[in-house]
Amino acid sequence: MSRVQQLIDRIVDRVNINLREPAFDVGPYVREIIPVDQFVKFYAFYGLTPHYPLHFSFAHSSLAGSYFLGRCTVEHAVLYKSDIRGDELKRKGTLFEHKGIRIPLHEDEEIRIRDSFLIKTLVHNNSHDPESPEEFQIRNTVAMHYANIHGAPVEGCFIGPFATVDLTTVHDCVIGAFSYVQTGELNHREVPAGTIWIRADGAFEFRYNYADEALARYVSVKPGEVPTGILMDFVEARKGEFQEVFESVGCCRGLEIPEGASVSPYSVVKGESTIGRNVLVAQRAYLNGARMGPGANAQENCYIVDSTLEGFNVTAHGGKIVGAHLGEKVFVGFNSFVRGTDRAPLKVGAGCIVMPHTLIDLEEPLEIPEGRIVWGLVRNAADLEENSVSAEELSRVDGEFSRGRMVFKGKGETFVQAFRHRIQHILEENGAYYDGTAGLGHAQKGQNMVFNIIQPYPDGDLKGMVPTIDIRP
Amino acid sequence: MSRVQQLIDRIVDRVNINLREPAFDVGPYVREIIPVDQFVKFYAFYGLTPHYPLHFSFAHSSLAGSYFLGRCTVEHAVLYKSDIRGDELKRKGTLFEHKGIRIPLHEDEEIRIRDSFLIKTLVHNNSHDPESPEEFQIRNTVAMHYANIHGAPVEGCFIGPFATVDLTTVHDCVIGAFSYVQTGELNHREVPAGTIWIRADGAFEFRYNYADEALARYVSVKPGEVPTGILMDFVEARKGEFQEVFESVGCCRGLEIPEGASVSPYSVVKGESTIGRNVLVAQRAYLNGARMGPGANAQENCYIVDSTLEGFNVTAHGGKIVGAHLGEKVFVGFNSFVRGTDRAPLKVGAGCIVMPHTLIDLEEPLEIPEGRIVWGLVRNAADLEENSVSAEELSRVDGEFSRGRMVFKGKGETFVQAFRHRIQHILEENGAYYDGTAGLGHAQKGQNMVFNIIQPYPDGDLKGMVPTIDIRP
Repeated sequence: MSRVQQLIDRIVDRVNINLREPAFDVGPYVREIIPVDQFVKFYAFYGLTPHYPLHFSFAHSSLAGSYFLGRCTVEHAVLYKSDIRGDELKRKGTLFEHKGIRIPLHEDEEIRIRDSFLIKTLVHNNSHDPESPEEFQIRNTVAMHYANIHGAPVEGCFIGPFATVDLTTVHDCVIGAFSYVQTGELNHREVPAGTIWIRADGAFEFRYNYADEALARYVSVKPGEVPTGILMDFVEARKGEFQEVFESVGCCRGLEIPEGASVSPYSVVKGESTIGRNVLVAQRAYLNGARMGPGANAQENCYIVDSTLEGFNVTAHGGKIVGAHLGEKVFVGFNSFVRGTDRAPLKVGAGCIVMPHTLIDLEEPLEIPEGRIVWGLVRNAADLEENSVSAEELSRVDGEFSRGRMVFKGKGETFVQAFRHRIQHILEENGAYYDGTAGLGHAQKGQNMVFNIIQPYPDGDLKGMVPTIDIRP
Repeated sequence: MSRVQQLIDRIVDRVNINLREPAFDVGPYVREIIPVDQFVKFYAFYGLTPHYPLHFSFAHSSLAGSYFLGRCTVEHAVLYKSDIRGDELKRKGTLFEHKGIRIPLHEDEEIRIRDSFLIKTLVHNNSHDPESPEEFQIRNTVAMHYANIHGAPVEGCFIGPFATVDLTTVHDCVIGAFSYVQTGELNHREVPAGTIWIRADGAFEFRYNYADEALARYVSVKPGEVPTGILMDFVEARKGEFQEVFESVGCCRGLEIPEGASVSPYSVVKGESTIGRNVLVAQRAYLNGARMGPGANAQENCYIVDSTLEGFNVTAHGGKIVGAHLGEKVFVGFNSFVRGTDRAPLKVGAGCIVMPHTLIDLEEPLEIPEGRIVWGLVRNAADLEENSVSAEELSRVDGEFSRGRMVFKGKGETFVQAFRHRIQHILEENGAYYDGTAGLGHAQKGQNMVFNIIQPYPDGDLKGMVPTIDIRP
């Protein structure tokens, strides 16, 4: 048995021990899902800039495609085409504020990944957990294809394909396919597939569940099989184009990149795409005929095809936008799939919030009015009616409010403000408002980045494993 | 002052302390010779295969372009486009034999480079020093453009441009431009430019000196200036083509590479070049219209242009062959420049030995008969008469023999045998005789190699320096 296979087996055991309640065997979901040959195809890399504290430590791991930017330790883990980053890691001395308590960090924050198997997974990290401000931990966890772990320390979890755990400390949980949880904390729970669940203790709770049948068309997973559905087909159809990108170092494709903007050399940009001022195109973003207005961003694993984004748009990790015209400050949440066509074009008004894990897949032309909050499955005007509310209307809610399969409880205003605040934070962090001196963000700091490449052993018993590496300033 | 400049200054001080006798100031030769911007242009890299013991440790250094393959530690050093390798490092337990004494290695041999500035320098390493079998040291040394340090532990030295120290322990010496020394040991000496000096204690001594004027056309160096001459012009004219090579990862240029052969992804191969069985094309080798017969090799920094090599040819590090037809087993030594033209083609008969640092630069057609040993400057038949001898004739010499500017003392047969033995060693090490099972060498072991890339800080105070890195299996 090869070392990679041995490693995967050991991870399975550790995750299963954690998941004895709820009883769940992750083995069939990950064993032999990725042939060992695949682990040698994509190198990992780490970025080098003067902007981020550097300390990388990798041991007994396979790191295909992973991208490291800040302090990070990886041990006994398989990161397969994962994005990791770490540009928002907190610095030594920073004050972490939580409910009035101010906790100064006594060292630079670090991402620690142990005994985990993360498949095509993002760990962007804007960690929220005041209990462990210096360590952002991912342990004993299996995350399936294109799941997002974001600012969410997880231990002992199985995270299904295209699922997202966001700003949530998750312990011993099974998160179903395409589910989104942002609940602060979650323990010993099994979250059914297609659950969109946002909760802030004492303030609000938002909950939506996809109908099983509707969801299965888009995402479906069975033990022992690679996930299927429209979302898998969509990304798989484009993955060959990333192979070319990984085969060259440096970004010199004759694209006009204005001041303040940055386009990752590990992104695909083609067709009649244009890049506005302060635009951020992250690694593994895919742009084909994408007109990116000023301050717009395309985060890791985004796809923007034949679409116009007017400016200051956030397309969160894994968001997919096809055949659409987005007004200013439209937010498209994690893993959302937003697809118009020539016959059924989509227009999204300024300031709209497309909730994480929304599926807008048009069968008729649709125009979403300004300032709308949209969730769930939307194929036409009737669906939109059932699966959206104006921010204004929701802000007036204080109590319970339900529409279609969605139930909201609590203060609508707090919910809307929390979203707006977060969108603003993302735009600022990404440098959307950079004016040449102030407002420096990820787009500007990433401009002069170089990437160091880590490849695994090409053959022998260690095939697919990387050497033990320690890197300091 | 940037960290790289500080580092260079410190190296200059350390080398100068060593060179107080002979009194020599290396400062003007290296200060500001390479603009700091250059140090960020080329990444370094290390190869990963199951074939070589791995342990790399880099600290406080700039490593542009360097290539590591075996155990290597680099501290407080500048390696600028250096090749290093390390595939011939001895393993733990190996017996090192020297004059009947057998010394078992108690650990894997390691290359250690400290407080040195090596410009475009090779350190291939087939170390010969029984006093330090586990450590191959390069310390307090400045090596100028395209110098070769080969199997030669050096301490406190200035090595001029295109000079070679080969299988020689060198301590506190100044080696002039284009000089070649292979003398076992050398202490506190100043070797004038253009000296070809091969000595085996008690067996033989070969010595040739280029006339200053003749040499100056090919290689010349003045304090405070980049070296000049035909050899510099030749390599500088082609360096842009390597830039493209460094910008892509992996070797996929549609070249037909037969079994047992390997072509480094960091070589340039163009024109109507062909690659025979078991051919080795090393990194930074340049082939343009090169027909490489079976078992032929092009080592680091070789240039083979519009030439045919019939097979089992060794082109040692830095050898340049243009417009020539080489018979089987022709050896072209380190940094030799062998140039025919359309009007003055060159034919070199089988088994010829072109001595290291030979300049064959034709003004008329020339055919060198089989089995000839050639040295010095050869432009025509008259020069060849003065600067060559048949191996047979030299083998009969026992005592003193001089011809032109060359003086030989000792046993000719031992000299010829030593050369033939070394050529055979090189062919075997490079895998020229690989038959599909036996005879595995560098060509075959390198076939499935992957390269991990190390880039320096792109800007800031540390611009051009690489992080501190430790890599183990």
